[in-house]
Order: sequence, then C-alpha cells, then structure tokens
Amino acid sequence: MKIQISKQKNENYTIIIGCGRLGANLANTLSDNGEDVLIIDKNKEAFRKLSPAFGGLTLNGDATDLDILLEAQINNATTVIAVTNNDNANILVAQIAREIFHIERVIARLYDPEREYVYHEFGIDTICPAILSVKEIDKILSRPDMLKDRLQEAES
Amino acid sequence: MKIQISKQKNENYTIIIGCGRLGANLANTLSDNGEDVLIIDKNKEAFRKLSPAFGGLTLNGDATDLDILLEAQINNATTVIAVTNNDNANILVAQIAREIFHIERVIARLYDPEREYVYHEFGIDTICPAILSVKEIDKILSRPDMLKDRLQEAES
Repeated sequence: MKIQISKQKNENYTIIIGCGRLGANLANTLSDNGEDVLIIDKNKEAFRKLSPAFGGLTLNGDATDLDILLEAQINNATTVIAVTNNDNANILVAQIAREIFHIERVIARLYDPEREYVYHEFGIDTICPAILSVKEIDKILSRPDMLKDRLQEAES
Repeated sequence: MKIQISKQKNENYTIIIGCGRLGANLANTLSDNGEDVLIIDKNKEAFRKLSPAFGGLTLNGDATDLDILLEAQINNATTVIAVTNNDNANILVAQIAREIFHIERVIARLYDPEREYVYHEFGIDTICPAILSVKEIDKILSRPDMLKDRLQEAES
C-alpha cells in the first residue's frame, strides 16, 4: 500500500465514508459543485451508486483502519462525513477525524440519536434521519391546506 | 376478528403503520399533543419503542391486509402515515388509504425516491430520509462558522 501525504492544503477537500444512498448522493452533489471529494466504502459494488459524471475519487477499504484514512489523505481534509449504515463505525471514524487529525468539520449520521449531545461536545455534528423525518412530517401535517379546513368548506 | 366501524368522525385521528424508530417517535409526539393515534405493526415487540406515556392504541397485524385497516377504523382516519421499513408496503398502504378510503392526508416514507413524483400526483406526500439528510448536511456545511473562515482568521 502506498501512502501519499501531500503537504498542500486543498481549498475544500471532503472525505465521505460510506457509499450508501446518502453518501453517494452527497458525493455527487459536492462533485457537481466542483469540490474535491473522496468517498470510501468497504464494498466496491457500492460505488455503482455514484453518477457517471462523478468527478471525485473512490477508495475501497475500511475507514476505521487508520491506514485507509491516511491513504485518503485525511490530514488534508477540510470536512469528514461518516454516513455508513453502522452508528459505531460512524462514531469511531468521526472521533478519529476530530481528535487525531483535528478536522474542524466532522459530521456523523446516527440512526440512534440517544448520545447525540456527547458528540456535539466533541465538536462533531450529527444528523439523525428519524428526527429529520419527524420534523418533515410535522411540517406536512401543519400545512394550511389541511383536510379539516377542506371538509368544513365542503360542508358549509 | 371483530370489525367495529364507528360512524362518528374523530377530530384528528391518525393511523401510523410501522412502529420503527420513526413510527414510534411520531406516535409519541402526536399522543403527547393529545391527538388520537393508532399504530400498527406486524411485530408485537416493536411496540416496546413507544414511551410509557403513550396514550394511543396499538394494533398487531399486517396493514397491507384490508381487515387490519378496517379493524383500525381507517374510514375514520384523518391522516395515514406509512413508515415501515419496506417501500412497497408503504406505497401499497398509502394507495389503499387514498384510493379506497379517500383519506385526504396520506404520507409515505420512501427510501428510494425514484418514483416520488408519481405518488405526488396521487395526492400522497412522500418523505425520503436520504434527501432530508443531504439537505441537512448541506445546511451544516454552509453555516457561516466554516473552517475556512476560521483558518483565514487564524492565519491573518
């Protein structure tokens, strides 16, 4: 394995861990915006989710392995986003990024939001799909065009 | 199985299908707001996710089975929210609710947003966790306290 550590600091260099639906979508979006992106996944097949126009890099390996993070040049990253399907892996990678490599912007997806506040204290941003979904449904339910209004209109 | 069909229309009666993290969270929230809620799940153990203070009803069964929906008094529901882990089940239940029972407000979670627009045409609202998560990460990334600003400040 070759470890290349470049000393030059990229303007914006984002490392995404986990090429699931969310990771791939993010990678495509950032790449479309012209940003430098590298996406890591244990499973090569996962990279198929990237769009044909994806202009970033892919790295096949386990991001909880320090060598893989070094190969990804994590020391040059401005942002690390951990969105594998495994909360523990996301937390581990986020803490390595934050505590060892002092990456300022670290985001982890947590399916279980229970210990979210702990990570915020470490300076790790977290997103929880279930909480986002509850908020979105709440928004839909409180839209003014509600059934009740329509029924009342129809009945009056 | 007893089917009870009450003719009285509840003010707000919400049926939630799927007592996963999102379904349970929604059920707890609506119940806390004093709304009538019934939550359906194929697996009895799933109801453990409900808070001890949950004031709604639970129904153990498969909501793609019409008898179960009738037992849940779907004809009295103002809102049906399908949030099982299975996109196809969510779509099926949402369409039954909309087309057969003419429930005005129907929301389905879809992990795969590909055919989202079709459901919108049917009057079914959809939420896609991956898209919500991308938007949230985008919001975090574009916050004014970005690394680059801090680095520039530190360097200047």
